[in-house]
Amino acid sequence: MPGGGHADLSPVNFLLRAARVFPERPAVRGEKADLTYAGLLERAERLAGALRALGLGAGDRVATVLPNTEPMLEAHFAVPGSGLVLVPLNYRLAGPELAAVLAHSGARCVIADTEFADRVQEALEELDPRPEVLWCSATGADDHDRAVASAERVPLRPAAESALLSINYTSGTTGAPKGVMYTHRGAAVHTLGVIAEAGLSPSSRYLWTLPMFHCHGWAYTWAVTAMGGRHVCLRSVDPPRAWDLIREEEVTHLCGAPTVLRMLLDAAPAEAPARPVRVFTGGAPPAPALLQRCESLSWEVTHLYGLTETYGPLVVCAWHPEWSALDAEAQARLKARQGVPTVVSEPLRVVGDDGRDVPADGETLGEVLMRGNNVTTGYYRDEEATARAFTDGWFHSGDVGVMHPDGYLELRDRLKDIIISGGENISSIEVEQALVAHPDVSEAAVVGVPDERWGERLKAFVVLRAGATASDDDLVAFARTRLAGYKVPREIELMDALPTTSTGKVQKYALRTRAAASAGQSS
Amino acid sequence: MPGGGHADLSPVNFLLRAARVFPERPAVRGEKADLTYAGLLERAERLAGALRALGLGAGDRVATVLPNTEPMLEAHFAVPGSGLVLVPLNYRLAGPELAAVLAHSGARCVIADTEFADRVQEALEELDPRPEVLWCSATGADDHDRAVASAERVPLRPAAESALLSINYTSGTTGAPKGVMYTHRGAAVHTLGVIAEAGLSPSSRYLWTLPMFHCHGWAYTWAVTAMGGRHVCLRSVDPPRAWDLIREEEVTHLCGAPTVLRMLLDAAPAEAPARPVRVFTGGAPPAPALLQRCESLSWEVTHLYGLTETYGPLVVCAWHPEWSALDAEAQARLKARQGVPTVVSEPLRVVGDDGRDVPADGETLGEVLMRGNNVTTGYYRDEEATARAFTDGWFHSGDVGVMHPDGYLELRDRLKDIIISGGENISSIEVEQALVAHPDVSEAAVVGVPDERWGERLKAFVVLRAGATASDDDLVAFARTRLAGYKVPREIELMDALPTTSTGKVQKYALRTRAAASAGQSS
Repeated sequence: MPGGGHADLSPVNFLLRAARVFPERPAVRGEKADLTYAGLLERAERLAGALRALGLGAGDRVATVLPNTEPMLEAHFAVPGSGLVLVPLNYRLAGPELAAVLAHSGARCVIADTEFADRVQEALEELDPRPEVLWCSATGADDHDRAVASAERVPLRPAAESALLSINYTSGTTGAPKGVMYTHRGAAVHTLGVIAEAGLSPSSRYLWTLPMFHCHGWAYTWAVTAMGGRHVCLRSVDPPRAWDLIREEEVTHLCGAPTVLRMLLDAAPAEAPARPVRVFTGGAPPAPALLQRCESLSWEVTHLYGLTETYGPLVVCAWHPEWSALDAEAQARLKARQGVPTVVSEPLRVVGDDGRDVPADGETLGEVLMRGNNVTTGYYRDEEATARAFTDGWFHSGDVGVMHPDGYLELRDRLKDIIISGGENISSIEVEQALVAHPDVSEAAVVGVPDERWGERLKAFVVLRAGATASDDDLVAFARTRLAGYKVPREIELMDALPTTSTGKVQKYALRTRAAASAGQSS
Repeated sequence: MPGGGHADLSPVNFLLRAARVFPERPAVRGEKADLTYAGLLERAERLAGALRALGLGAGDRVATVLPNTEPMLEAHFAVPGSGLVLVPLNYRLAGPELAAVLAHSGARCVIADTEFADRVQEALEELDPRPEVLWCSATGADDHDRAVASAERVPLRPAAESALLSINYTSGTTGAPKGVMYTHRGAAVHTLGVIAEAGLSPSSRYLWTLPMFHCHGWAYTWAVTAMGGRHVCLRSVDPPRAWDLIREEEVTHLCGAPTVLRMLLDAAPAEAPARPVRVFTGGAPPAPALLQRCESLSWEVTHLYGLTETYGPLVVCAWHPEWSALDAEAQARLKARQGVPTVVSEPLRVVGDDGRDVPADGETLGEVLMRGNNVTTGYYRDEEATARAFTDGWFHSGDVGVMHPDGYLELRDRLKDIIISGGENISSIEVEQALVAHPDVSEAAVVGVPDERWGERLKAFVVLRAGATASDDDLVAFARTRLAGYKVPREIELMDALPTTSTGKVQKYALRTRAAASAGQSS
């Protein structure tokens, strides 16, 4: 073609540009060192050199077992920028779990933090051949630092846009691990959507309360970099440390599950800055009490929804400026909805058992299906699971929801979390939303308990706000005012905290086990 | 492929999404009617129906001769959303010029405003076969309204991303018209860049001071729509009307050449709202005096650069937040630079006669070359011009500039605007910048005048600020303090206004003719 008009889309370009445009701007407030954009690029290029020196070549997989520190950011550009494939692992996995995903991905190299050395070593011992390891540590010079310091700089380059960029293993609680494949194009397009929805700019300062291993930190690894903003690293969600950084760095954006936000808010210092922070949350709808506390700190909360298979949040509860004039309860109800596909995403569908779209009546349950640039091309080395998950290019999320008349999606449950009691399908999320509407309630989780008469009956686990005094009877009475009788849980257990997964989702299976056990004792 | 991962990128999707997400939000403050997003989509779908009823089919060209009113916005989605090709014409073209581009594009339909009826009719009479015409008018129901009202709704769809979306004829002053081709992918990617750089959101209100026919209004036709913001239409740059709209609509963003900004600022009412407006300008660097007046109104100015061949501005003077602490003169000097490619754009090059990149020394002149998704695939039906303009996929802009050590481009001239005096290459822009640094100077244009001794000598045309009193001698003395002797113009002519093209660029050729004529008289 004599003319122009094509360049491969890749998030690698975002660091290359930031290093050209903003070389001296502070890119990373790191754990051991602060980096400018020129410095971040140099470290990434030297890491690329170190990986080449280890003998890695096109398409080889590089796994990470890293917290939210500078080596993880560097890997996000060095690995895909060298034609390699990034495999960001959940650092909370046990040794055998790590071994399983390392083996499945065929990783030839692991970049790991010594904080997780025991489990990583345990995993490595099971592997043959054993991957190379670059150890990082919280303090002092380490293997990784030495390898990077002594390596040659290898210029980073975007790959062909359809090339495999990363494999993200899902944190599913059952079955074999599944490796969700991301492409360079998908990641670049998704990142541009994040920039648009979050309003990122060179003045943005992003606090890393969301794990970077989780869908590449919802693409903020790339999005903050693209705009020349600042990454503020945080090894773990240590609330006092987080508050120090929020104050010192004048943080403008952060992400986290409601549980994480609650941890931060509960630890807010008396002199916490009431400076606008854009807060993005997902995994569970933000409860009214949580929204209220956020508002008192000028934290503007946006609810998101997605899965690992959709590059993280593909759905945003896009806020109509007009809605800000509504009362707090109405706003909370609107914010509890998952929303609509982002500006770069294709329309989604909510589909009934017959494979047809359910009516947009806010009531009829269906499964959520997605497709488009920010939907995975499939599961790595698992054609069977891929074939099962897709129909005509549509990904079956396994999530159940309703379509509201205004086109906003509201989730009701995971397919397996629907409770069937007395022949009625009950959405546990709907019951949970009714409970958290009570001003004393901080969190609620509802599960089904086997029941001879009804098949299943409802049990709710509730965490009250600090100092709140509502009794279980009060909550049952409150729920009666909001729900049909068959949806009101007869049994409510108050807890100090709900059990959660490493990514902040409530562990329903643990609650089900607990509920079944206590039902067994009492019967 | 069993999995997902691909959807065609197209700006048509942006309206489809806005109509789903924000159906009731005000989309357009129009001339005759205000439209919601649902209303804009309906009008666009009915226009698609009307075009189909005229017998148009895939790939057919639809030209527009329209001001910045609602029919032009509607055409931006209806035409590409029906697999047709949009040809937005400059409504200032004369009849024979319109005839030439209509014939070259082979347009089968013209959507035209009756304001330009004489010239459009003149053009149509030259054409065989004659295109269909849909007439729009400023008031009352018209052909276009009736056709749209009676047409069936035809759902809009994105085309294959590599498909031709539009042909933009360049406003070059010489030679045959050249039709710059845009693709759906190029336009979608460029638009996402505009959203990122301009920080558009659902709360944005965009005043249409830049012609929509000019590179699709620098892609704001699509970008404002994508975010669910509001288009505020403006038939012509009528400053009192513009100020009414700025106040009533609480405008947040506008674009225009410095000449247009100056018109607005000169007409600013005493009680003008000092509300932040993000202002984007290009075509010429904003002069310090202009920046100062903008600042007094809280207008934040960003300097852009591009050509029709680069989908409009591909280069942005990306502002480092740190620079805001510098003094006004230093800031103005930085803002006069064109800048760096936007976040979706590929790196550009500045290349010397030997085809190699010039050193980034801020001094060595070279031609600016671009490539990437937002660079044209070539000229419509003109393989020869396409081949001439591209080398290995790089577009030769014909613009001459320097690369600063920090990677920012600064233009010095069009290739043909370089003045060679006494064997020295002199950049007219550099001399103009020195003159506009004088506090009394509003605008300056420098041309070469044939000279027996020097080959060419410099002549400057200067517009003073209202009430300013500097003499030509004062300005020569001032220029001496900033420029090498051979760059100081000996002749300065004060004018009330500089002659400009329809897109606000100074007509250097007119000034050259005037300078040569007066030189002839005086010799």
